[in-house]
Amino acid sequence: MDTRVRCYDCGATDDLRDRKRCNCGEPHWFDTDTRDFDWPDEGMGIWRYVDVLPVNEPVGLSRVSGNTPLHRNRGLESADGPRIHLKLEGLNPTGSFKDRGSAVGISYAVADGTTWVGTVSHGNMALSVAAHAASVDLECAVLVAEETPRERLELIGQHDPHLFRAIGSYGDLYEETLNLDVDIEFVNSDTPLRVAGQKTVAYEICEAFAPGAPDAIVLPVSSGGNASGIWKALRELETAELLDSSAMPRLYLVQAARCDPIAQSYRAGSAAVTAVDGEETIAVSIANEDPPSGTRALTAVRETGGAVLSIEDDEIRAAMRQLAEEAGLSVEPSSALVLSAIEELTRSDTLGADDDVVGILTGSGYKEQTTVDTAVRDLPIDDLERVLSGLVGGETDP
Amino acid sequence: MDTRVRCYDCGATDDLRDRKRCNCGEPHWFDTDTRDFDWPDEGMGIWRYVDVLPVNEPVGLSRVSGNTPLHRNRGLESADGPRIHLKLEGLNPTGSFKDRGSAVGISYAVADGTTWVGTVSHGNMALSVAAHAASVDLECAVLVAEETPRERLELIGQHDPHLFRAIGSYGDLYEETLNLDVDIEFVNSDTPLRVAGQKTVAYEICEAFAPGAPDAIVLPVSSGGNASGIWKALRELETAELLDSSAMPRLYLVQAARCDPIAQSYRAGSAAVTAVDGEETIAVSIANEDPPSGTRALTAVRETGGAVLSIEDDEIRAAMRQLAEEAGLSVEPSSALVLSAIEELTRSDTLGADDDVVGILTGSGYKEQTTVDTAVRDLPIDDLERVLSGLVGGETDP
Repeated sequence: MDTRVRCYDCGATDDLRDRKRCNCGEPHWFDTDTRDFDWPDEGMGIWRYVDVLPVNEPVGLSRVSGNTPLHRNRGLESADGPRIHLKLEGLNPTGSFKDRGSAVGISYAVADGTTWVGTVSHGNMALSVAAHAASVDLECAVLVAEETPRERLELIGQHDPHLFRAIGSYGDLYEETLNLDVDIEFVNSDTPLRVAGQKTVAYEICEAFAPGAPDAIVLPVSSGGNASGIWKALRELETAELLDSSAMPRLYLVQAARCDPIAQSYRAGSAAVTAVDGEETIAVSIANEDPPSGTRALTAVRETGGAVLSIEDDEIRAAMRQLAEEAGLSVEPSSALVLSAIEELTRSDTLGADDDVVGILTGSGYKEQTTVDTAVRDLPIDDLERVLSGLVGGETDP
Repeated sequence: MDTRVRCYDCGATDDLRDRKRCNCGEPHWFDTDTRDFDWPDEGMGIWRYVDVLPVNEPVGLSRVSGNTPLHRNRGLESADGPRIHLKLEGLNPTGSFKDRGSAVGISYAVADGTTWVGTVSHGNMALSVAAHAASVDLECAVLVAEETPRERLELIGQHDPHLFRAIGSYGDLYEETLNLDVDIEFVNSDTPLRVAGQKTVAYEICEAFAPGAPDAIVLPVSSGGNASGIWKALRELETAELLDSSAMPRLYLVQAARCDPIAQSYRAGSAAVTAVDGEETIAVSIANEDPPSGTRALTAVRETGGAVLSIEDDEIRAAMRQLAEEAGLSVEPSSALVLSAIEELTRSDTLGADDDVVGILTGSGYKEQTTVDTAVRDLPIDDLERVLSGLVGGETDP
C-alpha cells in the first residue's frame, strides 16, 4: 500500500494519513513512480494497471470496475469533423465513472483495516461508494444535501448505508470531512484515493490508441477530481515513455453554462478558480459552484493546450436527443454536453477531419429518467398488416 | 450471411426468409456447424464468436454488446454452498441481456438490406431493439401492450421508434408479426436471429471456465428464447469438443411462482408447455403466460439434467435486498430470483460446496426503480464530529 502523497503544484510530500490537501492549499495526489511501467499483458478491469495503483488487492464489487467500451459511432460524425470515440463509463457497475475511484478507495480501506468509509455526495458518487462498501461489508456514511429528492435517496438507500441529511452549509462539508478526527475514510471526489482510481480511464484510452494517442479528450468537469486523475495519468504515461511529449492529448473540460466556475476562470485568464453563484441546470451531477480541484483542473487544461467550455441547457437537451436518436445511447445530461462541446470545437476548427477525439460519457441515463416527448399510436390488432404495410410503404398515417 | 434454419425437435430445415417456426409447430434456430470451432484469440464483445454467428459485420451499437463481467462475490456464499459466479448482463449497453440478440438482429438486417425492424415488447427488448435500430438509422416499429405505463414508453421513446399501442389480444400478436406479409424484420424474443445472439452469453461463460465447465447455470425464463440460446451454445460447444459430454452444465430455469407455465409443465412431467392464467408479479419482465419457446426450454432442462423452479414474490424481494446490501448489485426483480433459486438448490443439496454455479443476472435495476424503505437522519453540520464519532464508536443514536 502506498501512503506517500505529493502536491502537483508546490511539490511538497506528505503521508496520506496526515493530510489529503497540501499546506499550500492545493489537493494532494499519490506520488507514483512510473519509470518502469509498461502496458500489461493481462488484468481485470482497472486492476490491469495495478502497478500504478496505491493498493494491489481488489475486493468485492471493486473487481468489476473499468474496461468500459470505447465506441466509435459514425452516425455522430460529420465529413469535416473528427473521428468521435465515446468512452461509455455508464457501463461501470453502478452506472458511472465514479466506480473506478470507489474501487480503489474501498479496496484501500479494506487493506488498511478501516471499517468505516464515507462520502459527501447525493448523486453518482454516493451510490457508487455505498454499493462498493456493501459488497465487502464495510460500514458506510453518506452525507447528502438537505434538498436531495426522495427518489435519489432510495437509489442510494438500497445498499443500506448510514444516510445523513446535512443541515447547514453543505458547501463546507466536503472539506470538513477530510479533517475530522474520526476513523472514517472519506473517499470524496478529489481525494488521492479517488483520483488514483479515476486516472485508469486515461490508461484505458491511451492503451487503446497505443503506440499513438488521441488528439483530444473531452469530459465534463465538476469538482475537478476526474480531470486531475486523467492529467495525472497522461503525465505518468509520459514518464513511462508510453506517450510522446509532442503528442499529448489536449484536455477539454465542459461545464453547464449555468454553473461554470472553471470555465469563467479559464476565460478570465486567472491562475486559480474562484467560486461562483450558479443557477439551476439540468446537468445536476456537475453543478459545483466551488470545485475543490478547480485550479488543478485549470492547470491540466493549460499544460495540455486544451480549453474549458460552457454549454447552455438547451444545447445539452439537444445533445441528449442526438445521442439517443442517432447513437442509441442513453446518458445523463452531465454527460451529453460532451457531444455539444465536440461540435463546438469542430465548428471553431479546433478539431478537424484528421483528429481522433475521445468523449467521456461519464454516466448512464437510466438512473434518473428525463421526461421525453413520446408519441404513441393505437393499433387495432385486426388491422396489423394494413397499418404496418402502409407505414413501410411510406404512408404517414396508414 | 446464414439463412438456413433447423428445428431442434424434428430436424427439418427451412430458409429463414420462408419461416421462423417449423411446420411441426416448434421454433427454428440457425443450423450452425461448429465442428471446426475453437476458442478465438481476439474479438470485440459478442463478435469474438463471429465464426458461429449468422452475420459477420457488426454495425453501430451492436459493437458494444457482450463481454460482461463474470463476478464472484464471496459475501453471497455459504460454507456448504456452491461458489457463486454472477454474470452481470445489466452491463450491456441498454442494461439487459437483450442487447446480445438485438446486436445480431440489427446487424443481420443491415447486411440483408432491410430498412425496417420491429419487435413485440414493452420492456427490455423494446428498449434494446429501438436503441440498436437508432444507432444505424433503421426504421423501427415497437408494438407495446395497451396498458404499458407512460414511464416505460418514455424510456423506449427516447430512441424515437414508431411506437404502437396494440389494441386487442396482445398474446396473439407475437406470432402474428412473424407471419406478416410486410417487409419488417421482427426480432422477437425467440426468433432465430435473437437466439443466435443470446447464445453468446454461454460461450462467454464456458470460455471463462475452459478447459473445465461450471456445474450449473441458473437463469430466469420468460419466452424460453434465452434458455434456448444457451442450450444451443452448449450443444455447439460439445460438437466443437470444447465441452465434455460428461461435464455439461445443468440448466436451471427460474420463474415467478405467480406466472410459471414452464415450471408447472416441468413438475407435471409434461412433454410440452401449456399456457396458464398468471397472476400479477413484481417480476414483470418474465411474466409470460404462453411462452413461445416454452417446450424448447423444457427440453433443454431435461436434456441437461436441470430443473425449473418457481419463486414467490416475497422471496424475490428478499433476494433483491440481499444482492443490494451484500453484493452492491442493483438488479431488476426478474433477475434477483436467480439468487433465490441458487439458495433453494443449495438447501436441497442439489448444489454443494464442490460446485461452481453461474447465475445470470439478466437486467439492471436502474431502469425501473423499486421503492426502497430508506431511513435518513438529519445531521446538523456543526455537530458533525460528535455524531460521526459516536456512530463509529458504536452508539446507536449518537
